[in-house]
Amino acid sequence: MVDLYASHFGINNIPYGIASSASRPIPQAATRIHDSVIFLAELSTTPPFTSIPTPLPLPTLFLRPTLNAFAALPKPLQSQIRTAIQEAYTSNLHAPSSAAIQNVTLHLPIAIGDFTDYSASANHVLNAGEAIQGVRSYPPAFHAYPVGYAGRCSSIAVSPTPVRRPLGQYIEDYTAPEKKIIFGASRALDYELEVGAVIGTPVEPGTLLHAKDADQHIFGLVLVNDWSARDIQGLEMNPLGPFNGKNFRTSISPWIITLDALELSKVPAPQRIKSVSVFMDDPEAPNYSIKLTVEITRKSATTKTCEVGFETMYWTFRHMLAHHTIGGCGLRTGDLVASGTVSGDKDHEHGCLLELTKNGKVPSKLSDGSELRYLQDGDELRYTGVVADGVGFGDCVGVVQEAAKW
Amino acid sequence: MVDLYASHFGINNIPYGIASSASRPIPQAATRIHDSVIFLAELSTTPPFTSIPTPLPLPTLFLRPTLNAFAALPKPLQSQIRTAIQEAYTSNLHAPSSAAIQNVTLHLPIAIGDFTDYSASANHVLNAGEAIQGVRSYPPAFHAYPVGYAGRCSSIAVSPTPVRRPLGQYIEDYTAPEKKIIFGASRALDYELEVGAVIGTPVEPGTLLHAKDADQHIFGLVLVNDWSARDIQGLEMNPLGPFNGKNFRTSISPWIITLDALELSKVPAPQRIKSVSVFMDDPEAPNYSIKLTVEITRKSATTKTCEVGFETMYWTFRHMLAHHTIGGCGLRTGDLVASGTVSGDKDHEHGCLLELTKNGKVPSKLSDGSELRYLQDGDELRYTGVVADGVGFGDCVGVVQEAAKW
Repeated sequence: MVDLYASHFGINNIPYGIASSASRPIPQAATRIHDSVIFLAELSTTPPFTSIPTPLPLPTLFLRPTLNAFAALPKPLQSQIRTAIQEAYTSNLHAPSSAAIQNVTLHLPIAIGDFTDYSASANHVLNAGEAIQGVRSYPPAFHAYPVGYAGRCSSIAVSPTPVRRPLGQYIEDYTAPEKKIIFGASRALDYELEVGAVIGTPVEPGTLLHAKDADQHIFGLVLVNDWSARDIQGLEMNPLGPFNGKNFRTSISPWIITLDALELSKVPAPQRIKSVSVFMDDPEAPNYSIKLTVEITRKSATTKTCEVGFETMYWTFRHMLAHHTIGGCGLRTGDLVASGTVSGDKDHEHGCLLELTKNGKVPSKLSDGSELRYLQDGDELRYTGVVADGVGFGDCVGVVQEAAKW
Repeated sequence: MVDLYASHFGINNIPYGIASSASRPIPQAATRIHDSVIFLAELSTTPPFTSIPTPLPLPTLFLRPTLNAFAALPKPLQSQIRTAIQEAYTSNLHAPSSAAIQNVTLHLPIAIGDFTDYSASANHVLNAGEAIQGVRSYPPAFHAYPVGYAGRCSSIAVSPTPVRRPLGQYIEDYTAPEKKIIFGASRALDYELEVGAVIGTPVEPGTLLHAKDADQHIFGLVLVNDWSARDIQGLEMNPLGPFNGKNFRTSISPWIITLDALELSKVPAPQRIKSVSVFMDDPEAPNYSIKLTVEITRKSATTKTCEVGFETMYWTFRHMLAHHTIGGCGLRTGDLVASGTVSGDKDHEHGCLLELTKNGKVPSKLSDGSELRYLQDGDELRYTGVVADGVGFGDCVGVVQEAAKW
């Protein structure tokens, strides 16, 4: 049985995750090549791994339950290890350290000390504003810097952890004369298609990072589903931003794709509409060309609701990291910095239902014939991300569970 | 030499912190009684501590570099340990485990996985709105639930860690016809007087906590200075809330005051103006009567800029914890849940300069004769909190350092 995403994990990918299996019950570092998950603590006990000068022996480092210590290694060492893995695979030395992907459980790959969510897509900002307020306009700071907020770390889970529809308080009916606030299960559960950067080498507090130096601090990228309850969020946003509307669950894909694997997908970011401050002035700040898709499966019928390129984002991760640190805020290894919803300017490029269905007012049609306004219990969300031939993210999946009873 | 705050730490306080000294270089758990810091790993090697049935031996648990494992113990065990400490002190058994406060360094007492900042004071909301927009009005959700946002964990530091004035982008002049965005050191550095609750027993994700059960999850309280750069914050708030305007530094006091010590200071919270949802319906939700003060020292002259009671807060920690978990978001041991700025309805009860000086427009006078609009480099901020005779928080201090040069 070939896994659906074997083609994402060619020899030029070498992603990192945390895996366990029946015979390896302790979650530990692994990579994936095609259908094989290779347990790196075992692979790295022999040359050439043993001659790579790491602060801790690689088998010790790879036995840890998160990738943080590995992610913090200097980039050149990481690249050397990547090459050694590729060579070991090519020489067929990996077999004793491997298990079939079907026999493996994947875990949250990193310990996340802080989670930041940016709003880096111009299209999303315009579309979301139109859906909510009927106006296509930018927030005041949008072209000056990427606008972001802090998210909840404890609710971040690895795909395919389900998402339970949250309870909360919201306006019962915005069209009614009285804006009555009620308590109940969210009626407007949404997804947000995002990509996140995982911090590798930390940025010490007080270090002012220039955008052009920021790649040195990115270990790799993951797919992110920033599940959102639009009704709960809508009431709480003014004035402090999203909170309970977002903090019930964030899903990430299990494999972290390194910048080494993404190197060939670098493309120029969109032209700056306004000039940026000196610390973000980096005309070469690249986007990554990643073909992202969203599929909803309802009652066994699957419908693709979005296909969009990550290269459409106005702000790049370089800009985001520079902005994040300019006030003196440090970044720690394992921190997650997400892009915000990825949306293009076309009808099939909406990265969330708030945009696609105009906040539930204009239903879309699913292939089972039902109406899509917001998510229903039982709906399965599936993101995929393809970078190039043999390089992809696999998927990021979650099923909607019914709300708890109070 | 008697420390300024010896009177805060009577036998009925028994706070917890993390301390080290020349002879005890490894940061570890400690309490403070009057001028003595008692190292608890040493104290707990003898009866009655050895007969308290903890999951780990107390000397092991108290040698950890944070209080998290201790904070996670069941409340009855914690109370038993507290009583044992009081008895050991009364019997004069503590001397070999003690050091004078002057000879001790205090460290961040907890590992904080998530930091939430609420906006629980009605007075602050009204005053801040008036200072910024000239209108005294509540956010739409204010009386339905405490409104909050996620803050930055990595920037939380223990008093007296200094605060460096942040760089950032902001509107040069709001009165000018063109709202030009410039980059530079903040010109509007402010403090926010807050109290924070440290989570003890975790709330598992998906557990819907009723307000009346929330005390069981609060290990204790600390003073919090939520330093804020109003100019940076002002530009970024719309639509995602505070970010770089806050994430450069948050200070907390070193000693965590337990709910046991606060028991006698319970007072009724203000009457609800509107009825609340069933999960927060807890007429007995108490506030704590804490006399909070803010002093600014500029050029050796100290001025008290605020004196306010924590009992003025509209929302209690019980409400905050219930609201926090109602969507399914868990709370982990060590999480910090802060109250937002504490402000009363009188002129000397403003918990931040945004209120006191109407966003810098109406200067206040300091005792050195200088004008106070926002903080200057070199200004020292000092919070204190007094609960009752022999019970207080000590202080939470920070000096403003000049901005980095880009």
